[in-house]
Amino acid sequence: MPFVSAVVTLALLQFFWFGLQVGRARVRFGVPAPATSGNPDFERVFRVQMNTLEQLVMFLPGIWIFAHYVSAYWAAGLGVVYLIGRAVYAAGYSKAANKRGLGFGLSALPVMILLFGGLIGAVLAISPR
Amino acid sequence: MPFVSAVVTLALLQFFWFGLQVGRARVRFGVPAPATSGNPDFERVFRVQMNTLEQLVMFLPGIWIFAHYVSAYWAAGLGVVYLIGRAVYAAGYSKAANKRGLGFGLSALPVMILLFGGLIGAVLAISPR
Amino acid sequence: MPFVSAVVTLALLQFFWFGLQVGRARVRFGVPAPATSGNPDFERVFRVQMNTLEQLVMFLPGIWIFAHYVSAYWAAGLGVVYLIGRAVYAAGYSKAANKRGLGFGLSALPVMILLFGGLIGAVLAISPR
Repeated sequence: MPFVSAVVTLALLQFFWFGLQVGRARVRFGVPAPATSGNPDFERVFRVQMNTLEQLVMFLPGIWIFAHYVSAYWAAGLGVVYLIGRAVYAAGYSKAANKRGLGFGLSALPVMILLFGGLIGAVLAISPR
Repeated sequence: MPFVSAVVTLALLQFFWFGLQVGRARVRFGVPAPATSGNPDFERVFRVQMNTLEQLVMFLPGIWIFAHYVSAYWAAGLGVVYLIGRAVYAAGYSKAANKRGLGFGLSALPVMILLFGGLIGAVLAISPR
Repeated sequence: MPFVSAVVTLALLQFFWFGLQVGRARVRFGVPAPATSGNPDFERVFRVQMNTLEQLVMFLPGIWIFAHYVSAYWAAGLGVVYLIGRAVYAAGYSKAANKRGLGFGLSALPVMILLFGGLIGAVLAISPR
């Protein structure tokens, strides 16, 4: 389980990093708070953060449930794929909206495996012997 | 506890489904990424996803804490009410903004019971015998 | 651990309260759903909720991991600092965008300590004796 905890904290620090980039993009592209729109270059950096927030809400419970009912090692490994996928997503989407597909898929796939795997594992654990 | 895990993963898959609807609404109503506004029909579908994100952040820890300190079976039952409430919310809000009340209440009520019940259960667990 | 659960539920009820303020600000500043922009006074209240959502996604797993690998009492104490910081943030940001710095720092600092502390604790727990 400590492997899973380490991957989870890395995913959260990555998310914090994306938040810092939004702050920098506010200055760079002239979009002062509380606005979150008005400049497409800013909006793409902001969407990286928001979309990662959406993914994290599925990733975090998913990795714990999968680790508990299926395998902690596979959970941690899928978490590493998620981390790489999110880095690719941020790098691509920051440049252009049509460059967000690869990274999105590479991070959404492990999330889906964690959720469906975790659901199957939990349902099997409900069944009596 | 596996009942709770199963309900949680279903709530997350429901949220993933809402995210897919946002992607479809982008195409259908002509709101390409990174924009999230400009067409009220799109905005309602987007708000279904965002509001569910807000609810999930309370629902997820709430259901675990309630399950731990109060009752796992009641937690799972309240989770099922939440799931139905969110489905009603999405169906209503996608049609019109004034049709979001019933589903919102039906999903916010179990979340409130989970949080207040969990808080009371945790505080009672602090007290010495 | 019940201390941590109590602080977590309080942080979630605080977030629910911020959500209620957004509903009130919709009426007060004339920004009906599904819109989330158009009036800066509304947008600041809305950003309090959204930024708290971003912080919660890091705070919640962070406090559990820190409590597990480092110290439950310190985790709960850092959680109280976070709660106060968020209250200061909401009070400041609701008035003016340039009054959000103190509260942001006061809530982001405990989150960073929880994440880095939790990461170190988890990595040390991986190492063999």
